[in-house]
Amino acid sequence: MELKKGIDTMKFSTLPPKGTFDVLPKDMELRNYVKDVIRHTYISRGFNEIETPMLENIDLMTNSDGGENLRLIFKILKRGEKLEFRDEVNPDDLCDLALRFDLTLPLSRYYAKNRNELENPFKAFQMGYVFRAERPQKGRYRQFIQSDIDIIGDNSIFAEITILKTVALALAKLGFSNSTIKINDRRLLREIVVKSGLEENFETVCISLDKLDKIGLQGVKEELIDKGISDQKAEELLTSLTDLKSKGLQSFDSIYAKELAQIIEAVGRDYTIEFEPSLVRGMGYYTGPIFEIVSDEFNSSIAGGGRYDNLLTKFQKETIPAVGMSIGFERIIQILKDRGFQIPGKGKKVAILVGEYQKLEKAEELAQKYIEEGHIASIFSIVGVSPNKISKKVNSFIKQGFNDVVVVE
Amino acid sequence: MELKKGIDTMKFSTLPPKGTFDVLPKDMELRNYVKDVIRHTYISRGFNEIETPMLENIDLMTNSDGGENLRLIFKILKRGEKLEFRDEVNPDDLCDLALRFDLTLPLSRYYAKNRNELENPFKAFQMGYVFRAERPQKGRYRQFIQSDIDIIGDNSIFAEITILKTVALALAKLGFSNSTIKINDRRLLREIVVKSGLEENFETVCISLDKLDKIGLQGVKEELIDKGISDQKAEELLTSLTDLKSKGLQSFDSIYAKELAQIIEAVGRDYTIEFEPSLVRGMGYYTGPIFEIVSDEFNSSIAGGGRYDNLLTKFQKETIPAVGMSIGFERIIQILKDRGFQIPGKGKKVAILVGEYQKLEKAEELAQKYIEEGHIASIFSIVGVSPNKISKKVNSFIKQGFNDVVVVE
Repeated sequence: MELKKGIDTMKFSTLPPKGTFDVLPKDMELRNYVKDVIRHTYISRGFNEIETPMLENIDLMTNSDGGENLRLIFKILKRGEKLEFRDEVNPDDLCDLALRFDLTLPLSRYYAKNRNELENPFKAFQMGYVFRAERPQKGRYRQFIQSDIDIIGDNSIFAEITILKTVALALAKLGFSNSTIKINDRRLLREIVVKSGLEENFETVCISLDKLDKIGLQGVKEELIDKGISDQKAEELLTSLTDLKSKGLQSFDSIYAKELAQIIEAVGRDYTIEFEPSLVRGMGYYTGPIFEIVSDEFNSSIAGGGRYDNLLTKFQKETIPAVGMSIGFERIIQILKDRGFQIPGKGKKVAILVGEYQKLEKAEELAQKYIEEGHIASIFSIVGVSPNKISKKVNSFIKQGFNDVVVVE
Repeated sequence: MELKKGIDTMKFSTLPPKGTFDVLPKDMELRNYVKDVIRHTYISRGFNEIETPMLENIDLMTNSDGGENLRLIFKILKRGEKLEFRDEVNPDDLCDLALRFDLTLPLSRYYAKNRNELENPFKAFQMGYVFRAERPQKGRYRQFIQSDIDIIGDNSIFAEITILKTVALALAKLGFSNSTIKINDRRLLREIVVKSGLEENFETVCISLDKLDKIGLQGVKEELIDKGISDQKAEELLTSLTDLKSKGLQSFDSIYAKELAQIIEAVGRDYTIEFEPSLVRGMGYYTGPIFEIVSDEFNSSIAGGGRYDNLLTKFQKETIPAVGMSIGFERIIQILKDRGFQIPGKGKKVAILVGEYQKLEKAEELAQKYIEEGHIASIFSIVGVSPNKISKKVNSFIKQGFNDVVVVE
């Protein structure tokens, strides 16, 4: 009993877990608005929204292509059975489930399981929380929304064109018209690297090239030399990339260059898109065109993706073509908040104050009228509030952000 | 390298974890529709949508009032630091986080933390996944959506009236007009139990009464006697409950009876509501009126809640009045699916097939026209499909559920 009393009077921290956040009403409105714009854009163009569990079996997760993310998995302790604790036990053996760290691995499992019930090609999108045990820092969370769109089962560049146009349209609707799509092709990049005699070093060259934005041409060159690549070869590689960018895709004789040019032509009719031969994108699973969308105003990547034709190899022998793209949902939210973005078409927020239970019906009729006109009508009780305090009450609702306050008499 | 090769060729199960489910496109549409109806009903009446993380710190969770649910918590292994494995270690010491098992505990933490930025009284709602390590069975999941609505900071019966009317309205909009609200008051129930001389046995009497639906009056009586309560007292208790139901609330001289009558009068103007003196509801944290909504058609509870004025005691000394209600989201979905419910006002789904990249612009214009009329327009490539196979292609889209297929020539 003493212990129980101790627990009853114990006071707990009110903070959410480290790296996670509570969503206040105003932020929730914005998040719902952004989700709705993305959702309606995607749905009207024939994409199907799907959902998978937050949890996946741990074996699938720890044996995936997640790269860096594998170190960031939240693992869930087995329940019920007696756990064996020994000095040498592997923590993974104590766990049977894990929180998903992205939406791509779950999508691949989902598609492998449900493909007979899905359209072919399957145009899909997901918006949901993913979890990564990152060291918390500004703009980086342990639980955050990913917003993915994918076409599975189309091996033509039609898939790339559709994905790019659909995502660019959603972003334009959210006020990000001043954006540039940058595009490259992993296979083209490989051809260039091979021509520079660096075939053996493709992966490590990619890792350095990926930093071009941050450290510049000279920085990349120095890093390549540090990695044991000769000054001459590094110079040759960077020169051919720069040349290719200035001379354009038609200067390079490759089927991949021709396809990129076709994508750029089709997408370029409506959006700003440019070939960026040094674009790498981190994830190892891309197999063809890769792209990202950069906000000109913020000089920051707000979406990215590419073709990944080995989606299903974890589940079956057959390979299935797939193109996907991800909008940086939390970044979009942050930018819109920084901009002081106002959700368009919002009605008024009206507080209706009722002093007697007998007046409730009248208040409800009034509320209904406001609601039918597209406003928010919230009825509150002022039963028992003395008449000379009512104006103070009215002011408190105004101060809380209500546009109108009506006292029903 | 051998090991890596082994992993690369290993094939994984495509099933989601036990007790969880993938959401197929059709089901997702239904879930979004139900969420939207609830959301718009609540928002237009002045309720604020909020969200908390899926994760909470484990101390808060394991020391909560969750009752049975505490045994069902998914716990998350600590990361990074070296875990100490000893025979006698408590599994909880290996974990620092847990998945939320309901939305009420997170709401209380949220309110304690953010109350200065929230309206007062705070009208709130949440729709989100919760997690319980239940033994999987039909209609019972390990990850499922809860849909909660709460008013915090109003100690008048106005809160009960508002919550009941708002939830009943949302359910009516979803096609559950044929429902009955059953209402009781924990304090009234206690007065009756005390009058029968069973004050000491209040909790255990409640547990038995809660089974009235399943085992009937005679069953409850036998269980009470099994628990050591005298035949006479058990009889007296059950008789006074039956009497009270037939004679009505005005027959009982109690402030709680008067308040219940007021709630019933106000809610009863629009919805079917009846006093049910044997209603208990499981959760121990209710402190006043308790209620549930039963679908007449399915004889099954589709929503429930009550007043719980000790919401904040885990975080501070001050008590805060609160009334909340929860819609059985997954049950609603299942009933609507069983009914063959069709989402109202849905447009057509049109497939637009393009045989040449040069025709894409024309196809996009056509798609735009359909979309502006409220339809879904999905463009697909038939580049390279030979002319005599196009009609087969068209048929395959019809078979996949498209209402119209247009070939752009």
